Amino acid sequence: MKEFICDNISQSDNGRLCFAGRDTTELAEKYGTPLYLFDEDKIREKCRTYINAVKKAFGDKGIVLYASKAASFKRIVQIAFEEGLNIDVVSPGEINTALKAGVPGDKMWFHGNNKTDWDIDYAMSSGVGCFVVDNAEELYVIDEIAPKHKKTQNVILRITPGIDPHTFEAVATGKVDSKFGTAIVTGQALEITKTALSLKNINLLGFHCHVGSQCFDSQVFFDAVDVMFDFIACVKKETGFEAKIFNIGGGYGVKYVETDAGIDIASNIQKVGEHAKKAAEKVGIKMPVVAFEPGRSIAADAGMTLYTAGTVKRITGYKNYVSVDGGMTDNIRFALYGSEYTVYNAGRMNEECDMMCSVVGRCCESGDIIQENVKMPSSTKRGDIIAVCTTGAYNYSMASNYNRIPRPPVVMLSNGQDYIAVKRETIDDIVRLDI
Amino acid sequence: MKEFICDNISQSDNGRLCFAGRDTTELAEKYGTPLYLFDEDKIREKCRTYINAVKKAFGDKGIVLYASKAASFKRIVQIAFEEGLNIDVVSPGEINTALKAGVPGDKMWFHGNNKTDWDIDYAMSSGVGCFVVDNAEELYVIDEIAPKHKKTQNVILRITPGIDPHTFEAVATGKVDSKFGTAIVTGQALEITKTALSLKNINLLGFHCHVGSQCFDSQVFFDAVDVMFDFIACVKKETGFEAKIFNIGGGYGVKYVETDAGIDIASNIQKVGEHAKKAAEKVGIKMPVVAFEPGRSIAADAGMTLYTAGTVKRITGYKNYVSVDGGMTDNIRFALYGSEYTVYNAGRMNEECDMMCSVVGRCCESGDIIQENVKMPSSTKRGDIIAVCTTGAYNYSMASNYNRIPRPPVVMLSNGQDYIAVKRETIDDIVRLDI
Repeated sequence: MKEFICDNISQSDNGRLCFAGRDTTELAEKYGTPLYLFDEDKIREKCRTYINAVKKAFGDKGIVLYASKAASFKRIVQIAFEEGLNIDVVSPGEINTALKAGVPGDKMWFHGNNKTDWDIDYAMSSGVGCFVVDNAEELYVIDEIAPKHKKTQNVILRITPGIDPHTFEAVATGKVDSKFGTAIVTGQALEITKTALSLKNINLLGFHCHVGSQCFDSQVFFDAVDVMFDFIACVKKETGFEAKIFNIGGGYGVKYVETDAGIDIASNIQKVGEHAKKAAEKVGIKMPVVAFEPGRSIAADAGMTLYTAGTVKRITGYKNYVSVDGGMTDNIRFALYGSEYTVYNAGRMNEECDMMCSVVGRCCESGDIIQENVKMPSSTKRGDIIAVCTTGAYNYSMASNYNRIPRPPVVMLSNGQDYIAVKRETIDDIVRLDI
Repeated sequence: MKEFICDNISQSDNGRLCFAGRDTTELAEKYGTPLYLFDEDKIREKCRTYINAVKKAFGDKGIVLYASKAASFKRIVQIAFEEGLNIDVVSPGEINTALKAGVPGDKMWFHGNNKTDWDIDYAMSSGVGCFVVDNAEELYVIDEIAPKHKKTQNVILRITPGIDPHTFEAVATGKVDSKFGTAIVTGQALEITKTALSLKNINLLGFHCHVGSQCFDSQVFFDAVDVMFDFIACVKKETGFEAKIFNIGGGYGVKYVETDAGIDIASNIQKVGEHAKKAAEKVGIKMPVVAFEPGRSIAADAGMTLYTAGTVKRITGYKNYVSVDGGMTDNIRFALYGSEYTVYNAGRMNEECDMMCSVVGRCCESGDIIQENVKMPSSTKRGDIIAVCTTGAYNYSMASNYNRIPRPPVVMLSNGQDYIAVKRETIDDIVRLDI
């Protein structure tokens, strides 16, 4: 029995790749390609994992937010909200999407390193519950606009704790150097805290930091807790203000390929909870409400992209290429970061993968590559359905119309049913704003 | 008098950056930011440079095509067509755009490494004049579909001459390894030529190659001519077929920053013409019609992007950041390739640039950088207009809605006038396909 990178992937006896229990070649036939599939049941399962783990670790002093930048469209935001998550939004566009999904403004937390005056006004009009304030300028604008909206705005401050999320080196000075937030080590974090406390239309609730991405254990979060709780204690001593909320950001990892580590999110959150309680005690602060902001780890393995193979090119003595009918327009992550993905020939799962190839897109650009060094059956040919796994995060959300290629639809799978969540874009949609 | 990278950039006495003779801060005020500006007169000037140079060098045996993937929207395609260029299209979306711009199908040349059956059918329905065929599979599909359209389809074949466009090393074997075209060195180019000649619904006109990108002299084009004319002579000897068309692709460079070389396109084309005549004589073939396909060198320096500065962050002892209200959503080229751009504070051109900073976007992503190591006046502050030069190519065309950020409008400047060519996208446009 073949083992797959996620339990929503399987294969049928007749050699078809299945996703969420459905034959992917049949879905490709029904909806056409390229096609984004989302497994609604997996999204809900992941949401519940977070909600239950946070409840167990922090009681009623825990919050989970869906970082909707990973995949923002009405239906996925609605699902996350139905499961009890608040929504992390980073722009008026994401606020608008969440509003249209039925999420009330007060369940949204508004992030961003550079909110414009218009953004701030729009967010306050939408009743956004909490601003994750990046910098002092933003504080002043909120304070100035607040009276118009007859409110005191709840905010938390984004702090740069100086922890490198990728190397896991604590206080890697490079990470003080970030476009996001305000650094503790330079004294600017304390300064902005004092500013927030001095502004009468601002209600400071606490602090945010983001240290992780693709983390497979909790060490970096322990470090973040230590640094941030020290800071909270320092603020308490200096100003008397004691943080009610600590937002630890997102960052738990996702298995993209066989060699990626797996992770038990629930037990990791449990450990963060235990660590946080001890840390709070140690520095003498009350345990704040702790917020988690998963995005990728909710959406990524709930997604799969289906393509139809076109050209299969065997360059004698060099390399093989399998071209698909999408590419960097719907998945730019290999071009941008060299990201790894697991790729299958969805209709030939029983055949031996004896051909090494590059799976490339249809864009007129050499860098338009989905994945290098993919093993495919040598029988792979024009018309075959090619599946790329774990595409739920940062694929649809980063899609473009490069080469004027329409964006694929999103089809949601749930409990044996399938339905369209985002319609396929047409070539006429693309010119609709052209004069 | 300050010198700028392109003659459509200047500055006014009161210290404003001007583009196409217009005060950019006034245009930002009128249309809002982020904003793509295009200089229609510069586009026309570049088109004429090519048309006249090709005519001078090749007489009536020269063709110029606008490679619309550089920037594809109705108005720019219309302008190129009005100036006498044919249109290079790479997808049904680009064909549709050109049709809506009033370009008849027979003036379009259809490129792409992976045209789907549907694409081929759509292109033939649209009366596309010439397919630039990438591979044998494509030939067979065209041959099969042609009777339905009651036509013999004109095609040229994309050949991989084995020249590295970046290192200018002739026959760098790496470049045989490409997702595009068919290699000469493996014998596959001759093979596909024979296939094309054998198919009754295919009318083979000649060959295409693409060797250059950001080339500042013609050496790589001389090499391409030599390799391809050798191939044409070989084909003539083997099959009796003598190519009527040789499409040499695009590739002339654009000055993005002060240190980039400049280029006199007209004199380079003249040299290519002279070289080609000698080469044809040497290998004993008739001089074919030579086609040039400029994209970047038509559009790039006809474009400029305007932003409004938001957060200006000075991290004590580390670095400075100037955030703008756009980013990798409207210009992904730094994130994708580390591309260089020239950046100005449009309202402070008379001030000394004494602050080194990174100009970063508004996306929630560390890699969302417009440019590193930019010198700005230290007085730069929230509300200032920031201009990024030479953004006409591969900026609008690659734009996304990442973070659900709407794409900026395109405003065309001509002869002291300004008009909207592509309307600003709204946050409601972004959710329009969400169910």
